[in-house]
Amino acid sequence: MFQVTIGQRRTVEYLPEVRFVLASQSPARLGVLRSAGFDPSVVVSGVDEDAVAASLTDPAPVELVRALAVAKAEAVYETLAGTHADMVIVGCDSMLSINGEMVGKPLTPEAARERWASMAGKTGELLTGHSIIRVENGARTKEASGTEGTTVRFGTPSQEEIEAYIASGEPLQVAGGFTLDGRGGWFIEGIDGDFSSVIGISLPLTRRLLTEVGVSVIDLWTRPAS
Amino acid sequence: MFQVTIGQRRTVEYLPEVRFVLASQSPARLGVLRSAGFDPSVVVSGVDEDAVAASLTDPAPVELVRALAVAKAEAVYETLAGTHADMVIVGCDSMLSINGEMVGKPLTPEAARERWASMAGKTGELLTGHSIIRVENGARTKEASGTEGTTVRFGTPSQEEIEAYIASGEPLQVAGGFTLDGRGGWFIEGIDGDFSSVIGISLPLTRRLLTEVGVSVIDLWTRPAS
Repeated sequence: MFQVTIGQRRTVEYLPEVRFVLASQSPARLGVLRSAGFDPSVVVSGVDEDAVAASLTDPAPVELVRALAVAKAEAVYETLAGTHADMVIVGCDSMLSINGEMVGKPLTPEAARERWASMAGKTGELLTGHSIIRVENGARTKEASGTEGTTVRFGTPSQEEIEAYIASGEPLQVAGGFTLDGRGGWFIEGIDGDFSSVIGISLPLTRRLLTEVGVSVIDLWTRPAS
Repeated sequence: MFQVTIGQRRTVEYLPEVRFVLASQSPARLGVLRSAGFDPSVVVSGVDEDAVAASLTDPAPVELVRALAVAKAEAVYETLAGTHADMVIVGCDSMLSINGEMVGKPLTPEAARERWASMAGKTGELLTGHSIIRVENGARTKEASGTEGTTVRFGTPSQEEIEAYIASGEPLQVAGGFTLDGRGGWFIEGIDGDFSSVIGISLPLTRRLLTEVGVSVIDLWTRPAS
């Protein structure tokens, strides 16, 4: 941050334009960030998640989501290094565990049906990992990473509701087979933790990590619409 | 719901088109419902909230939010009676209590500043009331109402963050002076309860009330975009 001084008065403070890069193709993450006043650039990492997981020896879930978030931010940093003098690159990973088992995207209607049969009326633990790399004046200067856990309490949709939800296509491509911010919202009784984390990017965790690398969220806010 | 039979096969089930009427001008409530697959009609009630409150003798907060939700649905029913054969009208009211005190919209930057000074780092209780009136074949047939409480854990924004947030205008016109689904999301550490309730309309509570009046949420879903 630097100051513009007119006469003897300190008048305006500016942060040189910092580019916020979201290393994820998730439209839900982009939507959360935009609603919260950011205008992210999206650069997809193309990280081989299975290879990252295989490189770790029996990782705890928190270690795995953090390692995947770090790998994604690192890959995008490799892509972008030298292109923009000031930026923060944010990598994200999310996993859901139900009954102690990590579950991914169901992908097929059959898998989504099984998923809902086993999780209806129960709770799940949504784990999110974020990693931030800071570039200042063209040089990599700081990094920070962290994880956050949120409990999700699933409702008990009827067979007809589950079939209609699956037919909508929404649950197939998302971790755990549910969307909190879509039609799935009807079937989630509540959460204990951060709602943005469940959607895919935790705003309070991202704020803490940005602070660690010397950036305030308000410096990244776009001008309000009003 | 009725069935169309072709030959001996039951082929398609239809619910005659039910109009979902949101008796609220809140764009946040409309946004939650649209994201969750509904296409509501908005009809604003114009209810005098102070008069409703004054008509009750020392009401508990849950009684008050329920009474206000009922008054809004009733007012819109009076407006719409006879215009549409099949509809559900949903009235909503929300209140936030912090340190045992009910708080409304701050309206001014000064009030928003005081609000955040007193609630930063603390928890609040967001109370939501909903009321539904069902009209079938032109006649009023059923009604249901209920309330839901959610705990909100506020973060500790810096002075600069609070000033920038107030300058955005977002917190002035919302109960409690915070937006979970906007820039305020950076400053909410988490919730315990239903996130849609905090935004203004609880999807799981609305689903339960719709079931009570004989309507399934999936009958009100629009065709998926995909």
